[in-house]
Amino acid sequence: MAKPTPLSGFPELLPEQRFVEQQVVDTLRHTFELHGFAGIETRAVEPLDQLLRKGDTSKEVYLLRRLHEESAEGHAGIGLHFDLTVPFARYVLENAGKLEFPFRRYQIQKAWRGERPQEGRFREFTQADIDIIGRDELPFHHDVEVTRVMVDALTRLDFLPGFRVQVNNRKLIQGFYAGLGIDDTDEVMRVVDKLDKVPVDKVRDLLVAEAGLDEKTADRVLSLATIRATDDSFVEDVRALGVEHELLDEGLAELAELVSACADLVTDRVRLEADLSIARGLDYYTGTVFETRLDGYESMGSICSGGRYDALATDGRSTYPGVGISLGVSRVVVPLLARTGLTASRKVPSVVLVAVVDEESRADSNAIASALRSRDIPCEVVASAQKFGKQIRYAERRGIPYVWFTNADGGHEIKDIRSGDQVAADPAAWTPPSEDLRPQVLMKETEL
Amino acid sequence: MAKPTPLSGFPELLPEQRFVEQQVVDTLRHTFELHGFAGIETRAVEPLDQLLRKGDTSKEVYLLRRLHEESAEGHAGIGLHFDLTVPFARYVLENAGKLEFPFRRYQIQKAWRGERPQEGRFREFTQADIDIIGRDELPFHHDVEVTRVMVDALTRLDFLPGFRVQVNNRKLIQGFYAGLGIDDTDEVMRVVDKLDKVPVDKVRDLLVAEAGLDEKTADRVLSLATIRATDDSFVEDVRALGVEHELLDEGLAELAELVSACADLVTDRVRLEADLSIARGLDYYTGTVFETRLDGYESMGSICSGGRYDALATDGRSTYPGVGISLGVSRVVVPLLARTGLTASRKVPSVVLVAVVDEESRADSNAIASALRSRDIPCEVVASAQKFGKQIRYAERRGIPYVWFTNADGGHEIKDIRSGDQVAADPAAWTPPSEDLRPQVLMKETEL
Repeated sequence: MAKPTPLSGFPELLPEQRFVEQQVVDTLRHTFELHGFAGIETRAVEPLDQLLRKGDTSKEVYLLRRLHEESAEGHAGIGLHFDLTVPFARYVLENAGKLEFPFRRYQIQKAWRGERPQEGRFREFTQADIDIIGRDELPFHHDVEVTRVMVDALTRLDFLPGFRVQVNNRKLIQGFYAGLGIDDTDEVMRVVDKLDKVPVDKVRDLLVAEAGLDEKTADRVLSLATIRATDDSFVEDVRALGVEHELLDEGLAELAELVSACADLVTDRVRLEADLSIARGLDYYTGTVFETRLDGYESMGSICSGGRYDALATDGRSTYPGVGISLGVSRVVVPLLARTGLTASRKVPSVVLVAVVDEESRADSNAIASALRSRDIPCEVVASAQKFGKQIRYAERRGIPYVWFTNADGGHEIKDIRSGDQVAADPAAWTPPSEDLRPQVLMKETEL
Repeated sequence: MAKPTPLSGFPELLPEQRFVEQQVVDTLRHTFELHGFAGIETRAVEPLDQLLRKGDTSKEVYLLRRLHEESAEGHAGIGLHFDLTVPFARYVLENAGKLEFPFRRYQIQKAWRGERPQEGRFREFTQADIDIIGRDELPFHHDVEVTRVMVDALTRLDFLPGFRVQVNNRKLIQGFYAGLGIDDTDEVMRVVDKLDKVPVDKVRDLLVAEAGLDEKTADRVLSLATIRATDDSFVEDVRALGVEHELLDEGLAELAELVSACADLVTDRVRLEADLSIARGLDYYTGTVFETRLDGYESMGSICSGGRYDALATDGRSTYPGVGISLGVSRVVVPLLARTGLTASRKVPSVVLVAVVDEESRADSNAIASALRSRDIPCEVVASAQKFGKQIRYAERRGIPYVWFTNADGGHEIKDIRSGDQVAADPAAWTPPSEDLRPQVLMKETEL
């Protein structure tokens, strides 16, 4: 069999890189649980009619078919989910009678999209979603809550660069547009959403040509989209544009509350701003919308997005309004690994390599390893009874910091192979320094 | 939208059930890491030619196709992996230059098979695999190692019933058959493998009719398959059948060593036996083979299987012999949840519900929650400022054991709603008993 080649868009990690990704996932999970979010998983597949309900992403869906299926219709059409929001809405409807509302859940799973691979965009990728879902109603303070939880999570990922959370509110935009007498607010929003890729003059042309606005209205739409603020001063800027609408008032009040309620989270690394150009493409958002840009990785677009959706899930009797944010774990981790050489301090979980005197006494080395493991110290026994120098190199190649020897008198000694220090040790008592117990995440440069 | 219905073969869990599954996964991961196994993940898809290499399972493979793909061949044919062994062999070949051998890895991921769903058999399921791979050689003591690691892992899952690990050795079987002058040993093994489903007389008939054995040879083949022992006494029983072959000697010696080296693991809950009927269907096994039966769930078949494979992966220059075991996580957890009502002691991670006096003072309650979280105590703030009785019922419905109140004088009190005890508490110092910090796994009966 020839050496296999990677599949474009399906990234895989070496063990020492996977350790970094696992650390990210563990930190996210720990944070979400501290905030009372319960973990769930949904199946990887959904019926095709569910997946295509939103139209927008239909071209990216992977269809499934069993190899020996009689007809392509045999399975009534299932495909791989392309996000975790659509499956979650379905899960809530399916289990509504067994859940307590408001229902806080996190979900860290893979999703698949058949789009063209590029930096930060993959065909298979891991997402970490948090959502809070109410039955029939969900107070606005939960919009503040999910923002704070995700900022808390990102802040705990201390090897991440700084980041900027951009917030806006759909009611604000729609109210403003309605106040201007615009009918097709969705179409205008769709055009304005191009502002981060297309020059402003071109967007103005599109607003006239495609969305049917007159030039004056197009200019006022663009004026709204240029407003940015790190505090609630944006309210005055919007008011100065002279548009009046009840929904605009509601949106302004919500956005001002969100920015004020998160002001204490701002640090050198964490910025939060109201950015009135942010609209989010998906049509199910009805209020707050979020995006997040990572410093130095702006070209990747938003790494962490979401918003309020008041009518994503309904079973006829009840509607289930929700608010949530989704973090692109692969989107952040894979480029970060590639660009910075972020890695683990060793290739294996073992903090100790137990040496072997000869194959006949391997059971003695196993017993030492068992004693260490019984006190939660990860370790492994060397694979073959080579010369001690080779056994030390076995540890070195894996980055294992300690080697456990049995000396000629049957006494136990442990050697820190970084410093060369060797001391007597008792398998029932020796404990590594806590910073050595688990591998550390570090930059490759500092390792050299 | 009508209430969605479950997809047969794609099980999903409620949050309190998912907690049990997550506990299982955490315990497995912890055990594997204690033994020095590094975690990796492989992509969900493999090229179709890889998936179909073993022929056997081809009918169960799910093919992928992008919805708007021009032709069915557009993607050169990819499908979802049906186990974690085939992808792992490919991963080793692809990354051989960057891995240290022997390479110990664990992998806990989903796999997919389009087979007919039944108890313990799903179309989507989670597996937990451990393997040790060498380059060109891999000493036999690693066969003992993977057995011990998996027994350690299963033993730590203390809510599992007892279990029986059955071991055999392909060399023993093949040597015995060769000593009998049988040419097509694979075909004979395939027929003997039916012994757990088909009566012995019927198997004898098949050995004659399908495998072309004479009756006397068929009887000796069946005699071998009836040998069972919890120690190395099986060696004498095999010798008594009077067959001689070098490969038989090798297999007997290996199996005897394995049984002896694991004898100390045997307890009331954990049995280990040499069972000479075990062959494993897959043709890549070349030595040790394992199966595991859960007491009371024997009808489900083996929950944890594997063996030694000396030539699964080769790139022409090197071969990569390995030994591994795969535990069916969904296969164990889903029926266990269904049959025993195993669940978590609460529906949310929160150990404390922070009450709210009124919506105006919600920020004060948030500050209490932040203080608790800064000391790793999971908590949540109640969703609305209802009467205290209703806030307590909010905690009760979720199984949250403690409610934090701010009394009329602004003092802090915490109530254990199980006992009704209420004491003064400081948000910067109060800590729950360690058994309350995280949800516990329990039987539904004991909850009532």
